[in-house]
Amino acid sequence: MVVTDAADLVTLRKASHARVDAALTALFDDQHAVSPRLEAAMRHGLLVGGKRLRPLLVYLAGRSLGASDDDLDAPAVAIELIHAYSLIHDDLPAMDDDDLRRGQPTVHKAFDEATAILAGDALQTLAFEVIAEAAHPRSSALIKTLAKASGRHGMVAGQALDLAAVGGLPDASALAHMHAHKTGALIVAAVRLGGLVAVDDHDPRLAALTRYAEAIGLAFQIHDDVLDVIGDTATLGKISGADAARQKPTYPSLLGLEGARQRAQALSDEAIAALAPLGERAAPLADLAHYMIERDH
Amino acid sequence: MVVTDAADLVTLRKASHARVDAALTALFDDQHAVSPRLEAAMRHGLLVGGKRLRPLLVYLAGRSLGASDDDLDAPAVAIELIHAYSLIHDDLPAMDDDDLRRGQPTVHKAFDEATAILAGDALQTLAFEVIAEAAHPRSSALIKTLAKASGRHGMVAGQALDLAAVGGLPDASALAHMHAHKTGALIVAAVRLGGLVAVDDHDPRLAALTRYAEAIGLAFQIHDDVLDVIGDTATLGKISGADAARQKPTYPSLLGLEGARQRAQALSDEAIAALAPLGERAAPLADLAHYMIERDH
Repeated sequence: MVVTDAADLVTLRKASHARVDAALTALFDDQHAVSPRLEAAMRHGLLVGGKRLRPLLVYLAGRSLGASDDDLDAPAVAIELIHAYSLIHDDLPAMDDDDLRRGQPTVHKAFDEATAILAGDALQTLAFEVIAEAAHPRSSALIKTLAKASGRHGMVAGQALDLAAVGGLPDASALAHMHAHKTGALIVAAVRLGGLVAVDDHDPRLAALTRYAEAIGLAFQIHDDVLDVIGDTATLGKISGADAARQKPTYPSLLGLEGARQRAQALSDEAIAALAPLGERAAPLADLAHYMIERDH
Repeated sequence: MVVTDAADLVTLRKASHARVDAALTALFDDQHAVSPRLEAAMRHGLLVGGKRLRPLLVYLAGRSLGASDDDLDAPAVAIELIHAYSLIHDDLPAMDDDDLRRGQPTVHKAFDEATAILAGDALQTLAFEVIAEAAHPRSSALIKTLAKASGRHGMVAGQALDLAAVGGLPDASALAHMHAHKTGALIVAAVRLGGLVAVDDHDPRLAALTRYAEAIGLAFQIHDDVLDVIGDTATLGKISGADAARQKPTYPSLLGLEGARQRAQALSDEAIAALAPLGERAAPLADLAHYMIERDH
């Protein structure tokens, strides 16, 4: 089925969200919980709210190369587990110290700090377990891709750079470097995981998907910064203006609000252009590139 | 080479320690560090001190079934990475709040709390990356084994149970349940990882190794509790009597000091008996079972 209009993207997003949430929910079985409190904290961090953008990217990228949804479930679940763990740890008092996430108390507020640390730890472990369990012929490549994107050369490094930047104001290039690691790496991993389910590492279409994802990853972050300035707390589900209050460098502070919007638009265009080698099956990914810079939360 | 006397175990321990430390050190390359501070914190948590008991178990268990050291390096490294991450997080102010580990400042004291959280996170990620990179034919089984032992049904669950037990004093059975998860699961995983490099999951010798490891895991923990009572701070590299000061339940507090020693001895005997099906190649594992309850730190 070729999807070209925005209404269909909404349908795809809802179906993908429901599919991955069912798979995430199925991971929890109270009868086998060694520590019910730990698992409740994991569920809270994982299942309360969230856009499920990364699983959507896994499904859309994988389908664009002919993978089946059944084979895409494990990487879709795994990347959301990594994302959820990172949010729990980022929200901790020693890190960003956030009380609210997705309109709900953060895990360390709903439970306690130690439980939040452990819940994040166990969600990370579970991500790799889920991929290993699925036993895809390329599971080593899938695990390498996810690990490289989320560890010391990817997401965790980005968070370390972000923490180091509080109070200082780097240039747009340093900010892009930080975001490429903190959020970009996992967005790139999402499309690559989807792609790797269908084709091997050397397929040139994987490179095209990677260029697409690098562009939307940065566009997504710039748009997030823009929303932080123009959004209101009720819509965002977190405190708007929080970045400015914390003196964190943002794109609007470096490029101005209009400059930031233009940069996000240019990146969205670049992402869509990168999809050319994939043909019509990549149309939902193009729609998503539009959505990324138009969403209001 | 058949090893039966204690001097040879010392030699084996030193060789295994040097081998895994070389492999751990080789993971770090300053030229490619995205966040040098993050990687310095990872190295501090990983390379300052430590007995390298779990890698030793990987090597000895693997060799007892005919695996080569080259094939055992990746799981030996991975399990030490998991162990190191867990110590960094356990030491955090929100958890055990320890300032000293292996005679050195803990990672959050040498660096800061946020960096310690991230360093632990990235060490965990790296563990799975290292196994995936090695691309062993049974890498999915290796990753599943490590993940199950270290996550919500293993080590992390044990830490959650331990935190919940502070102030209360359960019976010996509840204490064994907690330790079986907090420390036992990873010790069992160490011998199973070593074994899985050589044989597949259904080999009965893996079951024998598992029984051995369950027994030495608990013996190790009981002996740790005994050392906490009788050891001095300089030898232990951590504050002796810390468990009692914190009113944590321990084996000496439940069984008495002599009762705890007898229990550790019985478990060591049980472990050695379990090795019977493995023949003479398992002799170093038997020596290790003796050492586990005789070490003074």
